[in-house]
Amino acid sequence: MADLSAAAPGSAGVAGRERRRAGSHRRGRAIEQMPWRQLVNPYPPARIVSDDELNAIHLASLDLLENVGVRIFSAEALDVFARAGAAVDHADHRVRLGRDIVTAALKTCISSFQLTPRNPARAVTIGGNNLAFATVLGPPYCTDIERGRRNGNLADYADFIRLAHYFNIIHLIGSPVEAVEIPVPVRHLDMALANLLHTDKVPYVFCQSRERIRDVLTMYATARGETLEEFSKRPGTYSIINTNSPLQFDTPMAVGIMDMARFGQPVIITPFTLSGATTPATLASGALLANTEALFGITLGQLVRPGAPVIYGAHIKNIDLKTGAPAYGLPESFKGNQLAGQMARFYGLPYRSSNFNASNAVDAAAAYESQGTTFAAISGGVNLLMHAAGWLEGGLCASFDKFVIDVEMLQGMACYLDPVRIDAETLAVDEITQVGPGGHFFGTPRTIATYENAFYSPLVSITQNYGAWKEAGAPDATTRAHRLYKQALAEYEQPVIDPAIRESLEVFVARRKEEGGSPLN
Amino acid sequence: MADLSAAAPGSAGVAGRERRRAGSHRRGRAIEQMPWRQLVNPYPPARIVSDDELNAIHLASLDLLENVGVRIFSAEALDVFARAGAAVDHADHRVRLGRDIVTAALKTCISSFQLTPRNPARAVTIGGNNLAFATVLGPPYCTDIERGRRNGNLADYADFIRLAHYFNIIHLIGSPVEAVEIPVPVRHLDMALANLLHTDKVPYVFCQSRERIRDVLTMYATARGETLEEFSKRPGTYSIINTNSPLQFDTPMAVGIMDMARFGQPVIITPFTLSGATTPATLASGALLANTEALFGITLGQLVRPGAPVIYGAHIKNIDLKTGAPAYGLPESFKGNQLAGQMARFYGLPYRSSNFNASNAVDAAAAYESQGTTFAAISGGVNLLMHAAGWLEGGLCASFDKFVIDVEMLQGMACYLDPVRIDAETLAVDEITQVGPGGHFFGTPRTIATYENAFYSPLVSITQNYGAWKEAGAPDATTRAHRLYKQALAEYEQPVIDPAIRESLEVFVARRKEEGGSPLN
Repeated sequence: MADLSAAAPGSAGVAGRERRRAGSHRRGRAIEQMPWRQLVNPYPPARIVSDDELNAIHLASLDLLENVGVRIFSAEALDVFARAGAAVDHADHRVRLGRDIVTAALKTCISSFQLTPRNPARAVTIGGNNLAFATVLGPPYCTDIERGRRNGNLADYADFIRLAHYFNIIHLIGSPVEAVEIPVPVRHLDMALANLLHTDKVPYVFCQSRERIRDVLTMYATARGETLEEFSKRPGTYSIINTNSPLQFDTPMAVGIMDMARFGQPVIITPFTLSGATTPATLASGALLANTEALFGITLGQLVRPGAPVIYGAHIKNIDLKTGAPAYGLPESFKGNQLAGQMARFYGLPYRSSNFNASNAVDAAAAYESQGTTFAAISGGVNLLMHAAGWLEGGLCASFDKFVIDVEMLQGMACYLDPVRIDAETLAVDEITQVGPGGHFFGTPRTIATYENAFYSPLVSITQNYGAWKEAGAPDATTRAHRLYKQALAEYEQPVIDPAIRESLEVFVARRKEEGGSPLN
Repeated sequence: MADLSAAAPGSAGVAGRERRRAGSHRRGRAIEQMPWRQLVNPYPPARIVSDDELNAIHLASLDLLENVGVRIFSAEALDVFARAGAAVDHADHRVRLGRDIVTAALKTCISSFQLTPRNPARAVTIGGNNLAFATVLGPPYCTDIERGRRNGNLADYADFIRLAHYFNIIHLIGSPVEAVEIPVPVRHLDMALANLLHTDKVPYVFCQSRERIRDVLTMYATARGETLEEFSKRPGTYSIINTNSPLQFDTPMAVGIMDMARFGQPVIITPFTLSGATTPATLASGALLANTEALFGITLGQLVRPGAPVIYGAHIKNIDLKTGAPAYGLPESFKGNQLAGQMARFYGLPYRSSNFNASNAVDAAAAYESQGTTFAAISGGVNLLMHAAGWLEGGLCASFDKFVIDVEMLQGMACYLDPVRIDAETLAVDEITQVGPGGHFFGTPRTIATYENAFYSPLVSITQNYGAWKEAGAPDATTRAHRLYKQALAEYEQPVIDPAIRESLEVFVARRKEEGGSPLN
């Protein structure tokens, strides 16, 4: 294996930061990357099923909602549905939802909205033909090729947030890895504080309980210099609602939908449908159940607050029926990512999809699975790509090395979405005529003037020939990515924050810790 | 590194074949793969530029052909153009081609045709919404992770042909690696014989000289039990014509276009345009020159034999302007692969594109570059994907391990192109109703009945959890692919061939060798 520490001296932990900073100054060269910008997808989205087929899914969903219903473990949610006229079976926690209620709820949904973090220059629009990338979210483990696989901790969490801040192609922060060593009642406080100190991009909030949502939103409001009431007027964070498929919502998810709606913050309703496990063994029934559960969750949010921002998420994929494991990254996911996009557009809702892979190493399989699901999602018109950087092992592990590999793929997608300009200037008939048959264009004024920016500059990919690469130690892409992640951390600079706001946040965290934080029930 | 020889004992050379066969019988399990079939792309192709922009490229091409012209180093070709009414400058080998001649030639082109090899069951249709995959073509080097990078030889060549025969997803044989040790005058004979003995799929022919084309086509005709005249009535092989961009065709390419047309065999006109080197430093001008040169070559073939099968190839990509190396696999290639597809459809011609990467190892970069260019080509409506399996190092090296990684990606694409069936049976409302909220579908009659074939079965990808994978030696995807390539060679069975035909072929090769083969000028 090549020397992994070639790019930046020191460890990747917090302690080594100053030393690394000095190291990067000695090297004197920042990583060349794309500038921060909101991405737009100018191409017509893929259509892999017909309008009639979309409508068949829609109608079957309405039938299921009306006849079979959905179980939701929240007395408050049952009351909300009952007041709206749904048939509620309190003993079975089951709601049978008439199609009129669903149809009315869909009418109050908005098709796009802006997420504004503490730095308004980092605001992103979700919906329409806009596209945004969020980091991996939720793994308990993290890894890199130098230190190996381990439990996540707050230092690793902070390093992922720093990487997400450093790389301009990342628009939103997920929750890259669990800070496992922090006691659960106060973990959300430390993670929220890290989100606000190490970046000024849009942060994430977990829907784990009413009290925790309030804690974290209070901090996010403070970071914007706002009260929670003021924060509730303008979305500044987001959360994911996973159902317990089939047709079931647990208490934290039910509370999350309702409270996030009340606070005017968007949730992504992402049914956890896996064909062959939580749905019948067909992709069509996976799409049907995902859609049915999404409509149920969307309706709940709209009943609580009409116009509450919501994102259509879906998880249309299967398990490997021979092993029972989820088949993240296999080609059914490509179809699932595009089909769900068509359903989201059928309803005029913003669409969330994912960069998936099931690999245990940052190898060729991790890369072709990620590139395949990402290309499918983007050509399928995704608005918010979750797990866009860092996801490994079907979501169990966050990889620092994979993060950079993914950043390269995401930058590539941004380049792909920058249309080929075709006009007299770019067709360059005069230049071609001057050079003529058998000539070359290495030295034309255009080539010389534009050589730095005419084409995509890769981070990880190389065009180096085999001999020179071999002589340089034959570093593979994962080794190069590893060096870049360390270089990025070495070059990272913490974004400015008003000292008074920082103090308020730290005081809040200290007080809530003194109060015992917020135990989970 | 994991034990590379776990799957199959013995070397990969010809000598070890019987031993390996026995080994595979002891293991008693063949690689589970997709069946042979002609692929169809049911989805609407991507549109990344407008019809007006396509037309602008077309019109600028006509202007260039008429005003600047193309140099072609063949007196015979100059005569063909002169007879058609073009302005020919013999001293400069330059043809200025009026738009009426080009437009008339485009009218005689056919939009699809069938390629029929010696086994008619392996025929494939090129054009329309059909899709076919061909192996890598042309590298001088080959590699695998056990034996390393080396010059190609006939044994390696034969092993690649065997792999291409073994894996059903491969439809056509390219020329996977040069048999460098075979003297040039007779190399084409040995390679053509290998093509006919180790597979019955469609073989490739290089356009290196008039004599060689005749040698190889004579052998391909013999393999079909036909004379060369009979063979000329039904396409059974194919070749690639690369131009010397900008606006220049060398002698073998000129002869190749004309002779292949006379023999009724298709050529793929693939201008070697690299923006910033052989074209101005814009993708638009790359598309323009590629289109201009393609139209010139297509016109020559149609003038020689109206209706001769021809495929629109293009190579719209750039060089890395900082290093001068071709940027195979970077995101400009994604756009190039889709834009060229739109141009091909503009003319109603079959479209050839490629699976590209510039990596020196079968790593994450090789995989995301290949998956990106392949996904772009397929969503861009490619009919014939060249270099679909085995290409590494920007085409300088053929990799056995990468071949299997690519086979996995190609199978994934075939799965992606199999539309999601949405009807009452697959939506499975009854099954969902019976299981109800909170249940599962592991044991429903459908799951049990279909568990083997409901979803894609990966070759290289795994869904194994980290612990089990670690215990199994933590083989990465490239290691697993390596084992599979050896297993495939162990299980490979040579296709039957009529002994009389085989003898005729061997007699022909022996006679031509005695005659000294066919030296290149």
